[in-house]
Amino acid sequence: MAYNIAPLNELIAQFERLPGIGKKTAQRLALNIIEQPPERAKRFAEALINAKSKIHFCKCCQSLTDMELCSICADSQRDRSVICVVSEPKDVMAFERTREFNGTYHVLHGVISPLDGIGPDQLRVKELMARLSDSNVKEIIMATNPTVEGEATASYLSRMIKPLGIKVTRLAYGIPVGGDLEYADEFTLARALEGRNEI
Amino acid sequence: MAYNIAPLNELIAQFERLPGIGKKTAQRLALNIIEQPPERAKRFAEALINAKSKIHFCKCCQSLTDMELCSICADSQRDRSVICVVSEPKDVMAFERTREFNGTYHVLHGVISPLDGIGPDQLRVKELMARLSDSNVKEIIMATNPTVEGEATASYLSRMIKPLGIKVTRLAYGIPVGGDLEYADEFTLARALEGRNEI
Repeated sequence: MAYNIAPLNELIAQFERLPGIGKKTAQRLALNIIEQPPERAKRFAEALINAKSKIHFCKCCQSLTDMELCSICADSQRDRSVICVVSEPKDVMAFERTREFNGTYHVLHGVISPLDGIGPDQLRVKELMARLSDSNVKEIIMATNPTVEGEATASYLSRMIKPLGIKVTRLAYGIPVGGDLEYADEFTLARALEGRNEI
Repeated sequence: MAYNIAPLNELIAQFERLPGIGKKTAQRLALNIIEQPPERAKRFAEALINAKSKIHFCKCCQSLTDMELCSICADSQRDRSVICVVSEPKDVMAFERTREFNGTYHVLHGVISPLDGIGPDQLRVKELMARLSDSNVKEIIMATNPTVEGEATASYLSRMIKPLGIKVTRLAYGIPVGGDLEYADEFTLARALEGRNEI
């Protein structure tokens, strides 16, 4: 008979289902929970249930929120004439960390990927077009990832939006700040050269 | 007003309190929970509560179990005359994975560390001595970590146990299987030389 503790194995299995968590890490995390006071496990369990039950998509930008409108859409100080289109809620968090953007967002919840059977209808494109029709939006910033699917999504949307007379822009390509030219791939370097600015 | 979702932040904070989980990983794990069906969060929450409430120390070997005796101590096939002394429950799991050991274990729940104020009284030493007094134990294998504290704990316990006429052994030191001599430190290599076996 092997060393077998059903409740511990179940907790390890739950940790292991998380992305990027392997068997050994899952075991370490589960044992950490066992070592801590019971309040710890209780608070963690409550946080899981609360997060899942209270968080849904913002009625306007489709980002995550526990209210009707997310804190960005509800903020009267934000510039509603600029919409930054991203694929995932985590991209909104990434832009907010820069503290450089005062417009609003629109989360597509994915990118167009015919191989995975994801077309525009599976994304929050309809909701984006609805926002464009009844407001004075001046610029759409395409901020999908610089991947094949991200590019395809950006160019698909830009073909739909341009006829409405709205300016469509794309994030700049170039060398990452703090990076090393030696490690930049040739496509990035070519784009950085192409998009060079006078100093 | 920043992008702020209280239930999400709380879940991120809970993940971040786990060992080896940084801010970015915590965010990724929390967002994964949000993306999954609600049953997922519910099962995870239940696993946390169950693991913490049902698991306690085995009455005999002080390892983790959800019964009175752990599955190893309860197994009549295991050899009770050999006790492998380890510092943590995870060490029991490590030995069990080898499938090479058919004796029993004793978990100290720590090592002697005067700097951290941990002496023998803070460890499960009393319980080990009790096991030795009323059974026919023939060998104690000291399997604490090969660190200063692990060594000190092993030699402290061996000084206590030897007078009882019980054989005390220590895990072999040497080069790890599959390792590279070039990366072995001089102490390990010296011990491997010292403990060489005829082939």
